[in-house]
Amino acid sequence: MTKLHAIIPAGGAGTRLWPVSRRERPKFLMDLTGSGRSLLQATVMRLAPISDSITVVTGTRHLEPVRGQLGQLTEAGLLSHLPVAVVAEPSARDSMAAIGLATYLLAKKYGPDALVGSFAADHLIQDEGTFRRAVNDAVGAARSGYISTIGLQPTWPSTAYGYIQPSDRHATDATFVVERFVEKPRSAEAERYVAEGFLWNAGMFVMQARVLKGHLAELHPAMDAALSRIADCWNRDSERDVVHREWSGIERIAIDHAIAEPVAASGGVATAVMTNSGWSDVGDWSDLGEFLGSEGSGAQQVLIDSDGSVVRAPADKAVVVLGVPGAVVIDTEDALLVTTRATSQRVKEAVEHLESGGMARFL
Amino acid sequence: MTKLHAIIPAGGAGTRLWPVSRRERPKFLMDLTGSGRSLLQATVMRLAPISDSITVVTGTRHLEPVRGQLGQLTEAGLLSHLPVAVVAEPSARDSMAAIGLATYLLAKKYGPDALVGSFAADHLIQDEGTFRRAVNDAVGAARSGYISTIGLQPTWPSTAYGYIQPSDRHATDATFVVERFVEKPRSAEAERYVAEGFLWNAGMFVMQARVLKGHLAELHPAMDAALSRIADCWNRDSERDVVHREWSGIERIAIDHAIAEPVAASGGVATAVMTNSGWSDVGDWSDLGEFLGSEGSGAQQVLIDSDGSVVRAPADKAVVVLGVPGAVVIDTEDALLVTTRATSQRVKEAVEHLESGGMARFL
Repeated sequence: MTKLHAIIPAGGAGTRLWPVSRRERPKFLMDLTGSGRSLLQATVMRLAPISDSITVVTGTRHLEPVRGQLGQLTEAGLLSHLPVAVVAEPSARDSMAAIGLATYLLAKKYGPDALVGSFAADHLIQDEGTFRRAVNDAVGAARSGYISTIGLQPTWPSTAYGYIQPSDRHATDATFVVERFVEKPRSAEAERYVAEGFLWNAGMFVMQARVLKGHLAELHPAMDAALSRIADCWNRDSERDVVHREWSGIERIAIDHAIAEPVAASGGVATAVMTNSGWSDVGDWSDLGEFLGSEGSGAQQVLIDSDGSVVRAPADKAVVVLGVPGAVVIDTEDALLVTTRATSQRVKEAVEHLESGGMARFL
Repeated sequence: MTKLHAIIPAGGAGTRLWPVSRRERPKFLMDLTGSGRSLLQATVMRLAPISDSITVVTGTRHLEPVRGQLGQLTEAGLLSHLPVAVVAEPSARDSMAAIGLATYLLAKKYGPDALVGSFAADHLIQDEGTFRRAVNDAVGAARSGYISTIGLQPTWPSTAYGYIQPSDRHATDATFVVERFVEKPRSAEAERYVAEGFLWNAGMFVMQARVLKGHLAELHPAMDAALSRIADCWNRDSERDVVHREWSGIERIAIDHAIAEPVAASGGVATAVMTNSGWSDVGDWSDLGEFLGSEGSGAQQVLIDSDGSVVRAPADKAVVVLGVPGAVVIDTEDALLVTTRATSQRVKEAVEHLESGGMARFL
């Protein structure tokens, strides 16, 4: 199996997982599953067996904790000789700039034919074998010159994700040419998309560095030029001012809009299909409950007439949930959330209330 | 207004207010309303203006905290020169023995005509003027030789309380002769009781010491004899063995069964009527919510679509309740309860689960 150079953009505030996720402790740094590893660490470990190198791109405010968490894996001997780099963005410029910067740096080091793959730092995947097979399929199409993605077989008509419409034309034996990408739909559209075989867009992209650069040079020439200049003088103290100036002028745009949509329109995107992988983007506490599939993970928990509840609390704390089916109870040292799985996607509202109510210190 | 010698039996585990109420910290020792005073302290302060002395009867395990809480009131100058005594029961023998012991000790000190009044240590009353007027009414009947009680005008057909059936005969101008006491009813009976003008029995009794002694001598001569011997040698170190031996042989019976019911049957009980006093026995968290009449008492609380919720948490903790109307959220350092007002009377079940599940350290 051909390995790739993994890029992990690690950003985003993720207020929907308050109070575990905070401004200074975003979701990707947290151990949400009680596995003993953060989502970022789990992502790195999932990618390590199929990667020739790992590059995490993150904001300067999270640089130290990211380095610390990667260091833990290295010190535990889990990454053996895999090169692991952390790239600090001078400021957040959305995903195209982050993935582009990492790609240009990897191309400089490993050459323009380097296969790069970008994967979110804060998703969960239960079946890693299925994931590796899908990546392998995507790699095959990437080697044929496609921008490759991995579409997820929907398990319900979610309105929380964008969708990928595959055509019926194969790109490679294992992948399909993508017809188009569509934004998060409303409920009725989502049902139609699922019925018509659309896939969830989980934001995974695999491609040759030179293919991405070629598309950027054509579609976003200013960004291509800026990223090229930045990559040229990256890590040279004498040119730090150049990096900051060039970076601050870079267009803020997601890779979906910058590359995936326009390239799909001209038939240049392929999609692999991942089915039954137990994938979750852990968008809210209900998602995590779905993933964990358990009613309360701790030993000190008593749930009575509270089926399907999601309970998280410090290990030494007793928690009783009585007569609240589907309860979501998330307790931390300084903040407590009580809601239900049906309303857990509205946690963002509560966070806004805390901010406007002079309680921003809890964010 | 004639003052009385107040007796406050302070006992009972009160598992329905877990996790604030614990075995070692029963309800009466806790500040449930955020007033800065425990229920016991609030009871003492409520009785102080109408009392010539205060006697708290409690178990030996709670002796020190009870003394400490009374000491706080004394040190703050709130009880001025009011004599305050704490009587430690060698073991729990139910309310007749506790109230009887205090009464016999008070009779020894203040004479057999002493007016004594017994009031629970863990009830709340919002309108103290109404309470004092009702006690004054009860005192009038007690001076005429009745065992007096204070019946509460029901505000709904509760099945949580026993009821008092008043006759239409006056005992004094302000009181009625009691026809009978009835146990906690089922729902249909409760509705009939309320329709027929029955009153809630809040376990308040006012009487002359010699009247109580007379009834005990007739109805429970062994208890009368034992209490007399105990009172004679109380606080004499040389006779401590006598006290323990006599006490351990005393009948376990509530004052309702021992005195109120049989004496009512022969027309010897009078009841005053207390209306709109804002009384609560704080039997469960829903009761406390009713009493507080607030949605979350703390400054750090955000309730969204959660009307009628009862929230208690440490002062420095942020609590968000989202989409759980009537939620009951009680957070303490080592234990958290999440339920609803509709199910809060079942907290006892949860406590039983904790005990049987090896989590008795949280009780």
